[in-house]
Formats: sequence, C-alpha cells, structure tokens
Amino acid sequence: MGQQRGRFITLEGLEGVGKTTNLGFVRDWLQGQGIPYLLTREPGGTPLAEELRDVLLAPREEGVDPWCELMLIFAARAQHLNTLIAPALEAGTWVLCDRFTDATYAYQGAGRGLPLESIATLEKLVQGDLRPDCTFLLDAPPEVGLTRARARGGLDRFEQEKVDFFHRAREIYLDRAAAAPGRYQVVDASKPLQDVQVDIASRLELLRA
Amino acid sequence: MGQQRGRFITLEGLEGVGKTTNLGFVRDWLQGQGIPYLLTREPGGTPLAEELRDVLLAPREEGVDPWCELMLIFAARAQHLNTLIAPALEAGTWVLCDRFTDATYAYQGAGRGLPLESIATLEKLVQGDLRPDCTFLLDAPPEVGLTRARARGGLDRFEQEKVDFFHRAREIYLDRAAAAPGRYQVVDASKPLQDVQVDIASRLELLRA
Repeated sequence: MGQQRGRFITLEGLEGVGKTTNLGFVRDWLQGQGIPYLLTREPGGTPLAEELRDVLLAPREEGVDPWCELMLIFAARAQHLNTLIAPALEAGTWVLCDRFTDATYAYQGAGRGLPLESIATLEKLVQGDLRPDCTFLLDAPPEVGLTRARARGGLDRFEQEKVDFFHRAREIYLDRAAAAPGRYQVVDASKPLQDVQVDIASRLELLRA
Repeated sequence: MGQQRGRFITLEGLEGVGKTTNLGFVRDWLQGQGIPYLLTREPGGTPLAEELRDVLLAPREEGVDPWCELMLIFAARAQHLNTLIAPALEAGTWVLCDRFTDATYAYQGAGRGLPLESIATLEKLVQGDLRPDCTFLLDAPPEVGLTRARARGGLDRFEQEKVDFFHRAREIYLDRAAAAPGRYQVVDASKPLQDVQVDIASRLELLRA
C-alpha cells in the first residue's frame, strides 16, 4: 500500500486574531486523532529560515526596501518548503503552518503595495504547484487584533505599521478566500472561541476523509 | 544643465583571477580623473545586504536549498540597488561593483543548475531595465584561479565546490559576454597585469566620452 500524502494546513490572519490559540487547537486535534504532524511557522521553520526571520523582524535604521523584504520571505520559504515541508508531506506527515504565502500577498502585496502579479510569479517559481490543502483564515476587524497585540507588550517592525496597512491586508486575505472557497475556511474570529473551534474541527474532519 | 547620470561598472570573474587588483586599478583611474565614484560589492554593499552576504557564505550543517540561495542573492541585490546604487547613479556618481547579476547566472545558474530563465525573471522583477553600462570579465581557466585562491588560506562554501562547477560557470560568463559584446569587455586575465590594465583603461576612456 502506498503511503498517503500528508495534508498541508495553514492558519492566516492579522495580528491578535487568536492564531496561537487556534494553532494549539488544531495541534491538539491532530494529536488526539493519532495523526503524525509537524507544527511550524513562516517565516521560519528551519535554522536558516529562522535566521532570515530575525533579519526580517529586526527594527533597523536602514530602511528595508520592499523588494528586498519580498525576496527574503521567499528565500526563507524555499528553504522551509524544500528541506522540511515537502519531505514531511511526502512521508505522510501532516504539516500545520502558522502563516504561509497568503500572508505575503496580504502584507507585502496589499500592505507594501507590491504588485500581486509579481508575488504570483515568485510563488510559481519557488512553490511550483504546491499550495496548502486547507487555509483557516481567522478574520476580524484590524482594530480588534491590534488592541490585543499591543496589550502583549512591544510591537515589532510590522506591528508598528499604521492601521490602514492592516485594513488593506485584510481585504486581500478576504479576496483570496473568496476566489478559492474550496481551499479557504474563513472563520469569524470575533465569535466566541468555542464556536470558532467547532467550525475548525468540522473542517478538519473533512480533510481527514 | 541637467546632472549627467553616473556610469555603472561591474567586474566579474572566477575566484583568483585578479578581481581585487583590477578593482583597485579602476578605482585609482576614477580617482585620478576626479570622477566621483562609489566602490561596492555583491552580495553586500549596505549593512542589511552585508548581513545577507554573511548568511550566504557561512558554512552550515543544514544544506542550503539552491532556490533559497538564489532568492537571498536577489534580496541583497534589491536592497543594494534601490537604496545605494540607483540613487548614486542618479546623482552622477559612478558605481564600481565587485560582481553583480552576471555572477548569479554563472554561479547559481550554470553552477547550481538553476534554470537561466528563472534568473532572468528575477533580474527583471528586481532590476527592471537597469543593467551595468560596462562589465569587465576577467577570464582565465578555473585551475589558475583556484590555485591562487587556495594559496590565500581557507576556502568558503563556494570555493569548496568542485572544479567542474567553475568550468560551467566560466562557460556561462563567456556565453553572456558573447551575446552582448557592447556591454562586456572580456579581459584575458592570464596575460601580464600591465597588458590587462591597458585594456581596462582604454575601455574606461570610452565610457567617459
């Protein structure tokens, strides 16, 4: 019997929408089902990719050119995908990733104003046809999440951006979800947590089938 | 009177062909002519891009995915080009750069076996139509240069590659020069240094005109 390929699940959403809590929920579900899984994140996931994450997130005096930022993200992604994610999926392991390419469209595309078609070109170059099997988009108005993120303490370079940036990013997330409803599950993150998790669990059941 | 745009000059060649010596020669020529210039290098040239250079050159246990390497190089290039090189040229400063995109074709393309058309796609994305005005290609058989490079001491991750890698890289360099003879000056780096520098100086005079 051939090994069944693992499922590739990503969680997306703006700052403070409950990604961490719900990643924990998906992880617990996978563990409860006895499904072998890998929990990882972007940018990051391997020592080299985590180094690049640090480079990306560090506040610095030298302005970071938006194209540099975009290329760095795809550099980290290539390393993560080719050395960790793709081999895991091949081996039948499910991969649960905190953010992936949808975040690049949202943050670097809508947020930084880089052309979405350039991001699509890079996505094709680096990923070929590999896309997540399921993306949970935790959606809430930016003001909600930013208030939560700020309450946690210092803001990193991305979090310092104006609220307007997050409005445009949210719009891109929602547009992408609307264009490929089979892949995305948009979850209203302003609902009670228990309701959010009922939605997530029912989708996970479908993925398992 | 409008400011005349600076010229963009790059030096290319395999390890040990005398790039450093001849960069010094071009720098001295520019200085002697009273031309304002910027001497820089790739990957690198800005603090962020130099950080990425360190990431690229560090030997590491984790294998570096070739696509990651390629994206990292273009990340450093975007930063270098948009924050340093392009503004300098615009201000009338000549830019003298130790390696540029030709090296990416040679090392990541021919060397790592990445598709040249993918490199061309990235070049177009990051550089638009910006290309060097003149590229000096210091050419010599790989065995010559590697012997010199090894004599200097430890070899970095790139220098450790097999000689075969350098043969393929040299071929790509020469192919590119042959395809655009107006931009490239191929210099036989196995000639006596004085002859090499006569060739370089006469080309520099033409650029000034």
